Amino acid sequence: MKYNQFAKHLPELDQQILELQKIDLYPVDLAQYSFPKIAQHVFRHFSPDYRSQAAVETQLHNLLVDENQDLFSYLASVDDHFSSQAFYNVALQYLGFFTPLDFSLSDPLSTMNKLGLPFLDEASFDFDSFTTAVYQLLNTRSKNGLLFMDNLANRGYFAANLSAREQQRPLFFNGKAQATFAADQLIREIVYVESDLDTDNDGQRDLLEATIIRPKVANNFIKLPALYTANPYFLGTTDTKMNSVDVDFAVKEPGDARDAQDDFDQFHELRTKPVPTDHNDPFANHPSVIEPNNIGTVTLSDYFLARGFASVYAAGIGTRGSDGIRTCGSPEETTSTIAIIEWLHGDRRAYTDRSKQDEISASWCSGHVAMTGKSYLGTLAVAAATTGVAGLDTVISEAAISSWYDYYREHGLVVAPETFQGEDANVLTNECFSRQKDAGDLAKVQPFYDEKFKQMIHDQDRESGSYNHFWDVRNYRNNIAKVKCPIVSVHGLNDWNVKPKNVYKLNEALKKQGVAHKVILHQGQHIYVNNFPSLDFYDLINLWLTNKLFLEKNHADQIFPDYLIQSNLNESDWQTPDTWQAETVKSLELATDFDHEDRNSFVDDGVKAFHDSGLKDLAWEQAFIKEDPRFAKNQLVLKTTPLSEEMLITGRPVLKLRVKSSANYGLISAMLVDYGEAKRLTTRPQTVELAARELGYHGRQETTMAFKENPQATPAKLIAKSHLNLQNRISSFQDETLEPDTYYDIELPLQPTYYHLPAGRQLGVILYATDMGMTIRHENNLEYTFDLENSSLEIHQG
Amino acid sequence: MKYNQFAKHLPELDQQILELQKIDLYPVDLAQYSFPKIAQHVFRHFSPDYRSQAAVETQLHNLLVDENQDLFSYLASVDDHFSSQAFYNVALQYLGFFTPLDFSLSDPLSTMNKLGLPFLDEASFDFDSFTTAVYQLLNTRSKNGLLFMDNLANRGYFAANLSAREQQRPLFFNGKAQATFAADQLIREIVYVESDLDTDNDGQRDLLEATIIRPKVANNFIKLPALYTANPYFLGTTDTKMNSVDVDFAVKEPGDARDAQDDFDQFHELRTKPVPTDHNDPFANHPSVIEPNNIGTVTLSDYFLARGFASVYAAGIGTRGSDGIRTCGSPEETTSTIAIIEWLHGDRRAYTDRSKQDEISASWCSGHVAMTGKSYLGTLAVAAATTGVAGLDTVISEAAISSWYDYYREHGLVVAPETFQGEDANVLTNECFSRQKDAGDLAKVQPFYDEKFKQMIHDQDRESGSYNHFWDVRNYRNNIAKVKCPIVSVHGLNDWNVKPKNVYKLNEALKKQGVAHKVILHQGQHIYVNNFPSLDFYDLINLWLTNKLFLEKNHADQIFPDYLIQSNLNESDWQTPDTWQAETVKSLELATDFDHEDRNSFVDDGVKAFHDSGLKDLAWEQAFIKEDPRFAKNQLVLKTTPLSEEMLITGRPVLKLRVKSSANYGLISAMLVDYGEAKRLTTRPQTVELAARELGYHGRQETTMAFKENPQATPAKLIAKSHLNLQNRISSFQDETLEPDTYYDIELPLQPTYYHLPAGRQLGVILYATDMGMTIRHENNLEYTFDLENSSLEIHQG
Repeated sequence: MKYNQFAKHLPELDQQILELQKIDLYPVDLAQYSFPKIAQHVFRHFSPDYRSQAAVETQLHNLLVDENQDLFSYLASVDDHFSSQAFYNVALQYLGFFTPLDFSLSDPLSTMNKLGLPFLDEASFDFDSFTTAVYQLLNTRSKNGLLFMDNLANRGYFAANLSAREQQRPLFFNGKAQATFAADQLIREIVYVESDLDTDNDGQRDLLEATIIRPKVANNFIKLPALYTANPYFLGTTDTKMNSVDVDFAVKEPGDARDAQDDFDQFHELRTKPVPTDHNDPFANHPSVIEPNNIGTVTLSDYFLARGFASVYAAGIGTRGSDGIRTCGSPEETTSTIAIIEWLHGDRRAYTDRSKQDEISASWCSGHVAMTGKSYLGTLAVAAATTGVAGLDTVISEAAISSWYDYYREHGLVVAPETFQGEDANVLTNECFSRQKDAGDLAKVQPFYDEKFKQMIHDQDRESGSYNHFWDVRNYRNNIAKVKCPIVSVHGLNDWNVKPKNVYKLNEALKKQGVAHKVILHQGQHIYVNNFPSLDFYDLINLWLTNKLFLEKNHADQIFPDYLIQSNLNESDWQTPDTWQAETVKSLELATDFDHEDRNSFVDDGVKAFHDSGLKDLAWEQAFIKEDPRFAKNQLVLKTTPLSEEMLITGRPVLKLRVKSSANYGLISAMLVDYGEAKRLTTRPQTVELAARELGYHGRQETTMAFKENPQATPAKLIAKSHLNLQNRISSFQDETLEPDTYYDIELPLQPTYYHLPAGRQLGVILYATDMGMTIRHENNLEYTFDLENSSLEIHQG
Repeated sequence: MKYNQFAKHLPELDQQILELQKIDLYPVDLAQYSFPKIAQHVFRHFSPDYRSQAAVETQLHNLLVDENQDLFSYLASVDDHFSSQAFYNVALQYLGFFTPLDFSLSDPLSTMNKLGLPFLDEASFDFDSFTTAVYQLLNTRSKNGLLFMDNLANRGYFAANLSAREQQRPLFFNGKAQATFAADQLIREIVYVESDLDTDNDGQRDLLEATIIRPKVANNFIKLPALYTANPYFLGTTDTKMNSVDVDFAVKEPGDARDAQDDFDQFHELRTKPVPTDHNDPFANHPSVIEPNNIGTVTLSDYFLARGFASVYAAGIGTRGSDGIRTCGSPEETTSTIAIIEWLHGDRRAYTDRSKQDEISASWCSGHVAMTGKSYLGTLAVAAATTGVAGLDTVISEAAISSWYDYYREHGLVVAPETFQGEDANVLTNECFSRQKDAGDLAKVQPFYDEKFKQMIHDQDRESGSYNHFWDVRNYRNNIAKVKCPIVSVHGLNDWNVKPKNVYKLNEALKKQGVAHKVILHQGQHIYVNNFPSLDFYDLINLWLTNKLFLEKNHADQIFPDYLIQSNLNESDWQTPDTWQAETVKSLELATDFDHEDRNSFVDDGVKAFHDSGLKDLAWEQAFIKEDPRFAKNQLVLKTTPLSEEMLITGRPVLKLRVKSSANYGLISAMLVDYGEAKRLTTRPQTVELAARELGYHGRQETTMAFKENPQATPAKLIAKSHLNLQNRISSFQDETLEPDTYYDIELPLQPTYYHLPAGRQLGVILYATDMGMTIRHENNLEYTFDLENSSLEIHQG
């Protein structure tokens, strides 16, 4: 385990002293104190949960400065110097490490080195170096992954040392908002924001329910920023039948699929924007009358509650308590998503309840808003950013879709998210249409919803899989020019639900646009990474949000790496390359650089074998990669010889193939595979410590997690995948004629990756057609043949 | 899914009205209101989180009384009767069920029937029957498993309807304490209780750290009961090396193992009890100065916090913050466990910190205490009960040990808890000795601890496995005569960690003693069952604790079934037999009632094959049951023909065997197995709904769980097991000589069970010796031979 610390920043000594005084660790009348007194003062403050002199002293006795002396007696002996070894021995104990279990009192620094913890390399500290060592210790990560300062806060440091009023206002230390607010002293409210749209066609502007959780502030002049999460699942989901994938594969008429413009998304719009209401007008600011309960919060937002950031949740159109219907990624969904921000920013009206009698304003809000969330939640954050709405100052988006075509389709094919075979816009729409949980409310909207739902099933067009108007308006990247706020994206390089292409293409577009985009890529699937001790995720985001929403000058833009990528070989190894995709291109010839056992074709007749096998999607994929004989004739496997040195594959590998199908239709799928018996990282994060830490003083507990080396060796691992309809070899919207038994040159860009393939492993390519876990499963007998002499794999090598 | 409700109680109409008035659902000046006004009053109170007239009305509009009318308009039309169908249609919606997804508006009662929800079977309600229907609805379980009244409380019912002072005092409804206290308004304290013992030999009475979490009360006259959990893991554990099990099997000298009395447990005792201090003496009651943080609470206790029960946690001697050393189950451990109760009851002194300058009394406590917890935690609750300590009014103990011999030993053998091969008293002692996490504190106690630890390794005697003095003083059942308080025990019939024999023997002993003992047996392993929607666990325990600690007369003794046993065929089927073990005994002859393929012996040479297989303990057991050829010669498998009708096996089956060993030592193990391809219940509970409910108003969230039918059929399932040293065929303490190649008659009582073996299945017995997951693994070549003509299986058939 290594505690990386990318959000590290050490200011000048004068600044350190001022900050230590601000948090009351150094006395404001510093000059009156001798060095030994200051050392006493500091260490006595490190047990904030012990609130009598005698109780604190029991704690000082528990800590050893060396084998024979405890901190209490050592402090009595301090003169004008403090032994560095004594300091770091107790520092490690304060950070939660035990001796002799975790480190030796005779050599604390070797342990700190190993763990990646910062220290001052001096034998003995005078006042200045002691000050720096203390300042640095507060900003050092503890065994549970939190900064020591955060753990002190969680143990009541601010409750013990600040006045009641000071505990109800933001406080910054080392450029980050501190957990001064008690996490159990919260205001919870529901309001109804009035949108411009009427997506349920009832002649009324949609009312949108929003839930607010915010810390109490000392007085009304203190305004707080908001972390807003648009979460369509927030108020429940309904089980919805998947679309069948055991259907015929369609032959498409040639043409541009975008030409047939459907009007699914043209809802009645009341364009007159309501006059923004004045926060100071008492008639526009009634107290809230509805309290939310059993709230499904986002942990990242919970963490920031104690730090003075309000949490705001809204499920959006068509969900319980709100008007409208679900439209899955449409512009109307985006417009209603940002209505909440407009209210928070003072640009839009809201009511205390659905009767619209009393207005309520976000008078507590500074108007600075960030959006957060994973998956659909993060997707709506990206959607909101592409509107340029005032008040949205940044987005922290995890595993987000940037174009719904890249979620449910690929290169002219219907391609499902992993483990969700048959899901499509219609399924997700109905799942999130939680208005149907209120019978009386559903009755009002059912006929209109049914009609629109039917139209969506038509317009999403599962038959063709082409990029048509329906998908074009769901491509947020079309509006990239409107993005004004910097974005942080987090994505799993093994996320086969929301595939990495979504963040890659967003990154390309934002770079072109000149918008700041920080990208964190981890080795997980579709997960959150807050609780990984190897990464100082909370600290980075704190630095970022304190800068973007509290406008603190803390060098966040410079300190936060542009790319932060977890190695697939070592979960503690987070790398910071300048680009995701290296410039150097290497072309590997399929005919000569790979062994293909003299085969150059396969037959795509595996659907029956798949059904007979009883394997679920993921188990099928594992079997397929391992060349299970049941599926061997449905694949063409190519492998390099074992690598003589490590190969780093960055960005998007591209397969250039010359291929023919035995019919006038067909699809080509490909996998890039890491072959070789090896103990790889676990697919899912494993528990490091249950309830290892708290999210603020009296806050909820969080368990820490990490990928670990799998104790069992595995023979292969998927690196990247792609699928393409041979009729869409030009583009996803251009449907071309395909002549049977005729070679075509196609380019197949795989999902982007960042993969260390160690020496001794083999790089593999599997060419196949039907992907049982993702594509339509049409029972056929097509043969696909490759001209391998004219086929290659292009890799950007880091 | 069925919502069983064993804590159900419907009082007379007058009582119903009084109680409805007490919770402010019926007006106190009831006579002034017409029936329609009362109906209005009731339903408007069912949205306590909606706190304006207009907001409540939006909710009434959301509920349908039939396909065409909502509750709002129906209430306007109510005259002197209320339609029963309308009532139950909205009742189901209030309970969290959706229409048409979960039920049909045209027939709500069939759904209520199916779900096991109570209802009044009348076409139309007048005032009286409406009152009863409303009273019953409040006490009906919702979709998330909580009573409707509890869900109302979680949505702020009491916050909205009671005064601030009333929210800080206990309130009873339907015989149960209500969640009137806000779960986020808590006092957290640490105190140090002074024990009579000096278990670390430093000449001072041990100080024991206790953590208190309690709701705020309206005034000092309100005294609260306490739920106390003694949790040795509470302040952390250390990884401790297991004892090796790949060692030789010892031949024992004949004799009574109890004769050699060791003095491991004779610590220095200061028998003069401190004078109890007066709660009203200000000098004996200083405010606390230490606040606990990141507390590992017990969910059951969390649930009761909002209901006016304080939570108290103590880790005990030898843990962080306390004096003493760990002794694993010894009388000293019990004595120090009850010291906390003595303080709560006003019979013992405590201090605000370890300096002992200021006393602190439990002046907030009524002196009524229950102990709670699972595994070691529940074990110490049983231990405490066997002292008869004043103040301990009941025990809710889950998966508890009642004799440590039944945990680490069996019939003269070392037998490990499942998945903890090699664990023993010494391992657990060191794991829980969390004082070693404070380096300065450890230094004081290390030499004495090391000496005592060495002695424990000797005294536990892994070589013989016999019941000696060390184990005899760790048999809580020896003190059963001292038990004064009624006990509730919860245990998993598939718990192979703390095996069911522990609760079975406790039950036998308590019955003989005439002490009330309620036993809940579930189909889980070593788990909590609070969150099973099929059982009203919280309600039963609430009824119980309200009776035992608040002394409310609520018929708890009569209502709570003596035995509540979950069926292995249907997780919703909880049965209430009069006894665990039925009287009818059936004897099955091994030679004639079972097929044994003409074999009558096996060779115990499987250790190498086990190691070669690479299988973990549990995987080995699975393979062994499935007659994996690698282990076939190490077992003798006997199977009945498929049963013509269901057989219910209750209590402890006993194998009567005539057996010989080829050497002068040996062991016999046996498994009772359910054979036959079938979809059985999952081994572990599966998630029903994430964060389905809250534990009180602003309380933490709880996920609901249930066993589900495994989608995959399995060929076999373990019913019960046993192991016996052939030298201990008389008793666990009597070591006898064993002649090689000589038949002996032995009785092998298996672990108790309650197992429905359906028609068509086969009952199997596997006879073997070395149990790779539990016994010593001595590589040998012994042959065991059975005289099957003189061997039988005795079953108590229900």
